[in-house]
Amino acid sequence: MCKNEFVHGVFDEIPDEYLHFPIIDYGDSLIIPGLCDLHTHAPQYAFRGLGMDMELLDWLSTYTFPEESKYIELDYAHKAYTLFANAIKNSATTRACVFATLHTPATILLMEKLEATGIVSMVGKVCMDRNSPDYLRQVDAKAAQAATKAWIESTIYRFKNTSPILTPRFIPTCSDELMGLLKELQRSYYLPVQSHLSENLGEVAWVQELCPDCDSYAHAYDRYGMFGGDGVRTVMAHCVYCKESEEELLKSRGVYVAHCPQSNINIASGIAPVRKYMEHGINVGLGSDVAGGCHLSIFRAMSDAVGASKLYWRLIDEKYKYLSINEAFYLGTAGGGSFFGKVGRFEKGYEFDAVIIDDSGIATTNPLTLEERLARVIYYSEESFIQAKYVRGKEVQLSEDNR
Amino acid sequence: MCKNEFVHGVFDEIPDEYLHFPIIDYGDSLIIPGLCDLHTHAPQYAFRGLGMDMELLDWLSTYTFPEESKYIELDYAHKAYTLFANAIKNSATTRACVFATLHTPATILLMEKLEATGIVSMVGKVCMDRNSPDYLRQVDAKAAQAATKAWIESTIYRFKNTSPILTPRFIPTCSDELMGLLKELQRSYYLPVQSHLSENLGEVAWVQELCPDCDSYAHAYDRYGMFGGDGVRTVMAHCVYCKESEEELLKSRGVYVAHCPQSNINIASGIAPVRKYMEHGINVGLGSDVAGGCHLSIFRAMSDAVGASKLYWRLIDEKYKYLSINEAFYLGTAGGGSFFGKVGRFEKGYEFDAVIIDDSGIATTNPLTLEERLARVIYYSEESFIQAKYVRGKEVQLSEDNR
Repeated sequence: MCKNEFVHGVFDEIPDEYLHFPIIDYGDSLIIPGLCDLHTHAPQYAFRGLGMDMELLDWLSTYTFPEESKYIELDYAHKAYTLFANAIKNSATTRACVFATLHTPATILLMEKLEATGIVSMVGKVCMDRNSPDYLRQVDAKAAQAATKAWIESTIYRFKNTSPILTPRFIPTCSDELMGLLKELQRSYYLPVQSHLSENLGEVAWVQELCPDCDSYAHAYDRYGMFGGDGVRTVMAHCVYCKESEEELLKSRGVYVAHCPQSNINIASGIAPVRKYMEHGINVGLGSDVAGGCHLSIFRAMSDAVGASKLYWRLIDEKYKYLSINEAFYLGTAGGGSFFGKVGRFEKGYEFDAVIIDDSGIATTNPLTLEERLARVIYYSEESFIQAKYVRGKEVQLSEDNR
Repeated sequence: MCKNEFVHGVFDEIPDEYLHFPIIDYGDSLIIPGLCDLHTHAPQYAFRGLGMDMELLDWLSTYTFPEESKYIELDYAHKAYTLFANAIKNSATTRACVFATLHTPATILLMEKLEATGIVSMVGKVCMDRNSPDYLRQVDAKAAQAATKAWIESTIYRFKNTSPILTPRFIPTCSDELMGLLKELQRSYYLPVQSHLSENLGEVAWVQELCPDCDSYAHAYDRYGMFGGDGVRTVMAHCVYCKESEEELLKSRGVYVAHCPQSNINIASGIAPVRKYMEHGINVGLGSDVAGGCHLSIFRAMSDAVGASKLYWRLIDEKYKYLSINEAFYLGTAGGGSFFGKVGRFEKGYEFDAVIIDDSGIATTNPLTLEERLARVIYYSEESFIQAKYVRGKEVQLSEDNR
């Protein structure tokens, strides 16, 4: 393996011009594609593991909105985003779709901090202008559009690895006017889009009330051109309660499902039918969804995805066989990776994102196959040892205290 | 707090004779009652996280029985039990009910190793004489009884903290003759009993076939006096699919349910109705059930219990409200602790089992209450820092590499 920026991609054989470059021998360590987190909230990282006693809508108003309002203070944002950036840098994640808050300066600060980590991320300044408290709401849709435009212009060409992603929080907090104005921005800048879809029963019913003329929650995004298709890259978190017509739209528009099993359990949402989505040819990746999820680890998301799929099979529909650990590994690498381009595989033409794992500290009494070693790393990710990490061919400098 | 053996128990105020003893100040660290693991399999520790793609009965015959057969070799047992004893010593667990294998020398070796850790454990040489492979089966019930008797006599007064517990593996592997003979041993030595109950649908149906004259799986134990009552202390793992009559028997006999949520997910068994058991006044504690569970941590079992109860509430029966993290903490301390006597609380007359947790490494941006700090330790136990551990008033010497 070559160091730093020497090798950007994966080749069938080493091209001549690289032949004289130094080789790093990682011995018996595991070398795997970097993990992709399709959905996480940076400003919720500091309170993960707290307030896990409510469902989505109460959880948002009781815990999340008050916490996010603190990011109007740059000092607070600095403190909290430093923790988040450090944690994701030292994790096995190499690519991430990240929600910030609606505050522009704090969002730019987050982007700077993420750029400094070396990982590749898409970051969203959150848009929300209704059904949220006055202290965390854009009061005027036009002003919200203007602020979002200014933020996009200030960041779209500024970073190498960090880029803006259009982020209407979710339908309940975004007026029709705002959605229409965001559509204009999407078209002007060809931005990707991230949001939430059909996470919780109360939320789904509320969207139906708010958008009586829409066939489904997905259509409430789609009518503003924010649900894939036409070259719009879209990722929707959760998709626990999608109707058949939404599943069809997910598929026909090429929208990505960010499956967040731990969050769906923690805030008692339910279990997304991942096997069904995979069988139907819908794009699926994994999300940590901090702080609905308590863990930033996509290894943990993989094992939670397997566990949740077993309960889906047992309790909801035995027609959909539960995931294997290998399939969960696929979701957390290539599955989500393709949202970022040719990412998540060691194959020709792919960008070189890799994580080196020294699993020698995981004691065993029997010889293990490579697959078994990987399964153990996934199941007890907290004991795994991330020895090195490469993103786009460049080594990420892990913190000393990660060891 | 006093060191080593100076203080065995918890007092309202320090008795005069202890007044001159040294005090240890753990500063801002959390001091909590020790955690109690009501169900785990020591010989499965070495393969936790492997073979998680099958349900119970296939999982036993494909992975577990072949692995357990290796414990006929003392060298193998030494290697594997050293790993297990070291792991449980360095965990937050202070009391445990442990399955060994059917091999007497290896079981005694395990007891020696557990005694050396300083934790309190009940260890069972496993009894099984049918429906298991020839290489892992006692072929003659009388010989099995004799071997079990010899093992009991050799260990019952030998250790300070480690004692034998009668362990028929489960009804499918124990003939009526063997159960009758084990009943004699139970009566002779007043032994507690541990086994498995109604874990998996296939298993429950099989027991019904094997014991057509029993009203339920629980009654198949009860007719041999091995289901509580008459001063028999019994703990049954899982109890996912108990009938109403079994629930009544659990309650009337004072039998403990060892709730093992992660195992029930990993081998796709289902979710035990823990809230219902608690409401009905049935004794409930938590079990790691390694290697059905991948994690020996009872903190992890607590958060898994909360998560599983949320899915039970959402998917099976909204009548039973999901557990709070405080309730899960109760289950993993006092709930299971009472199986061992006055254990699991800091109250007058209780034995002093404590874990000191330095959570200063868990960064936060907001001041936290004690309850919130504890919730975080539980949710991300892998990041917690076990600073010290006391069992029966004596400090356990944690390994250096635990830090």
